[in-house]
Amino acid sequence: MARVSNFNAGPAGLPLPALERARDELVDFAGTGMSIMEHSHRGKAYSGVHFEAMGLLRELLAVPESHHILFMQGGATQMFAQVPMNFLAPGKSVDYIVTGHWSERAVEEARLVAGIQGGAVRIAASSKEKDGIAYRRLPTPAEIHIDPAAVYAHFTTNNTIFGTQWFAEPDVGSVPLVADVSSDILWRKVDVSKYALMYGGAQKNVGPSGVTIVIVARSMLERARTDIPGPFRFKTFADNDSLYNTPPTFGIYLMRNVLAWIKSVGGLAQIEAWNREKAALLYGAIDAAPDYYGAPVDRSARSVMNVVFRLPTPALDELFVKQAEQAGMVGLKGYRSTGGIRASLYNAVTVADVEKLVAFMKDFAARNPA
Amino acid sequence: MARVSNFNAGPAGLPLPALERARDELVDFAGTGMSIMEHSHRGKAYSGVHFEAMGLLRELLAVPESHHILFMQGGATQMFAQVPMNFLAPGKSVDYIVTGHWSERAVEEARLVAGIQGGAVRIAASSKEKDGIAYRRLPTPAEIHIDPAAVYAHFTTNNTIFGTQWFAEPDVGSVPLVADVSSDILWRKVDVSKYALMYGGAQKNVGPSGVTIVIVARSMLERARTDIPGPFRFKTFADNDSLYNTPPTFGIYLMRNVLAWIKSVGGLAQIEAWNREKAALLYGAIDAAPDYYGAPVDRSARSVMNVVFRLPTPALDELFVKQAEQAGMVGLKGYRSTGGIRASLYNAVTVADVEKLVAFMKDFAARNPA
Repeated sequence: MARVSNFNAGPAGLPLPALERARDELVDFAGTGMSIMEHSHRGKAYSGVHFEAMGLLRELLAVPESHHILFMQGGATQMFAQVPMNFLAPGKSVDYIVTGHWSERAVEEARLVAGIQGGAVRIAASSKEKDGIAYRRLPTPAEIHIDPAAVYAHFTTNNTIFGTQWFAEPDVGSVPLVADVSSDILWRKVDVSKYALMYGGAQKNVGPSGVTIVIVARSMLERARTDIPGPFRFKTFADNDSLYNTPPTFGIYLMRNVLAWIKSVGGLAQIEAWNREKAALLYGAIDAAPDYYGAPVDRSARSVMNVVFRLPTPALDELFVKQAEQAGMVGLKGYRSTGGIRASLYNAVTVADVEKLVAFMKDFAARNPA
Repeated sequence: MARVSNFNAGPAGLPLPALERARDELVDFAGTGMSIMEHSHRGKAYSGVHFEAMGLLRELLAVPESHHILFMQGGATQMFAQVPMNFLAPGKSVDYIVTGHWSERAVEEARLVAGIQGGAVRIAASSKEKDGIAYRRLPTPAEIHIDPAAVYAHFTTNNTIFGTQWFAEPDVGSVPLVADVSSDILWRKVDVSKYALMYGGAQKNVGPSGVTIVIVARSMLERARTDIPGPFRFKTFADNDSLYNTPPTFGIYLMRNVLAWIKSVGGLAQIEAWNREKAALLYGAIDAAPDYYGAPVDRSARSVMNVVFRLPTPALDELFVKQAEQAGMVGLKGYRSTGGIRASLYNAVTVADVEKLVAFMKDFAARNPA
């Protein structure tokens, strides 16, 4: 079958050249007579891939030498617990800015960690609303109350379910900034030096599920606990180039292919241009028919990665998803708890995919008046 | 290049049919126009693979309904910490039978967990020797002193570095038995009902790195702590069919391919017959030249998975590894700290691979007298 247009929220589509490269050498990697999956993680062939992936990520995102790049496992969900495990202790406190479901989950796990190993978890801000859609905006600067003594302040750069995104980091003063960047890492270049720690599952913009990217300042590692189990210490991974234990080698290999593809098309400048063009096209189509396609999110916080909207009735939402799928566009169903439509425009989604969706939307609205 | 004979200790070789199947559908899984990696973990296509893999594992290993099968992440190294995290608390104690490097590591992490959340870690037995090779045998029944009040007793079914293996479970009375089965799971059928919990990384006998298999008794889950972070609770995974968070979908897919291959060749009865034949061939070649190929391990504990031996001098070890590689046999170098030769005979290694190695050994000894 021809490739479909994949608007999945994650695991998401991957660039076709990265997949074709994997296919072509799946059984025989670089003439070694073995798949990359079958190579020892301590051998030359895999090492080459491992450090190439790290190097590409450092280059594309301009990660400064003050920061380590780590490849870990368990996804953002595990990091919700693992980050506070590294920093919470009796008498210490951490701050969270809550802007959606995944921020709430991060708080929940941090509280469980505090229950086991001491310390406190504070809500520094929340944009939750009492009525209607839970999170349709981000907190204003005046609503954010950071504890200057906090070990870190945590925020979620992009909220996949509610479709909001931060376009500048929240002001947390001199408190180390920690971010869950799972759903928008590499959508454009960011100033990594502003972050003490960022983490994200690879399965949106960077690769398959099963790899977690962590970028952490050396100065932050020095504040971390050294008495927690080795596999949970960021320092263990930093000290061993993420070869402390067997890494998810194929996932990192595929990430290498994706990063090499990003570089080959012009790096993050080109990726950002495409992402802005895709978002402009889709929000443009929504705003052109405001009585038909309702966009609940505050304009200033509209995510370029996850565009949420809804049709006049849930029945039309359902028909829309179904007919889009028949037309070769998958993954458009909104999140279980929110309903509606969600189009995720991650890096592998092309401008042509979005043009196809926009044409479909126009046609659908004409064929199915409210 | 032609496929090599892969004696890697892990990540290990995979059955060629499982890899070819992955290659053939890498870009278009089952006519969906997407790679399996690009499918949502909550969609039909991936769900089919996920539950097929679980079902095949249950069928091949005859896992009783009293036990859950979980797919997790982080490898055995993470489990070294995660198992005691689920069961240790003030006033509770866990027992460890120590038979090699990986048992020692399990104890080390358990002690760190005890330091954070309370409880005690006891050594119930150790086969460590004061002089010479650290672990050349397993403890005798008389040497094993289990605390009847222990929450569990832990052992390592196969010791990859020292080349020893348990062929019957240690007698731990009525204490729940927990095992690290990373390096011999699926080498043959075992009576799963004897185990309260077994865990292992997939990357030896079952799939690529990045997937951890856990098989746990429902009764054991009832004793687990409910106040630790969700991503570390076995119960969270059991309650959600291992779809609590995004699983490593491609790794599980490839495991599915390997399990389907095992079934297609005749199941674990055939796999065990091949494994016994491979081990007999290789130990036979070693024993046929005892003055040249030294096997340090007690005969009764010789592993069928990892065969360790050494030549008369370290220089000959090195030459052996080099010339074997030139002859298309890779992964024969012994572990960093022990030296010598290690041939890992995991499930994807064929009898023909071992016949080739045995012929090479005979020829090498004749060409390079001590």
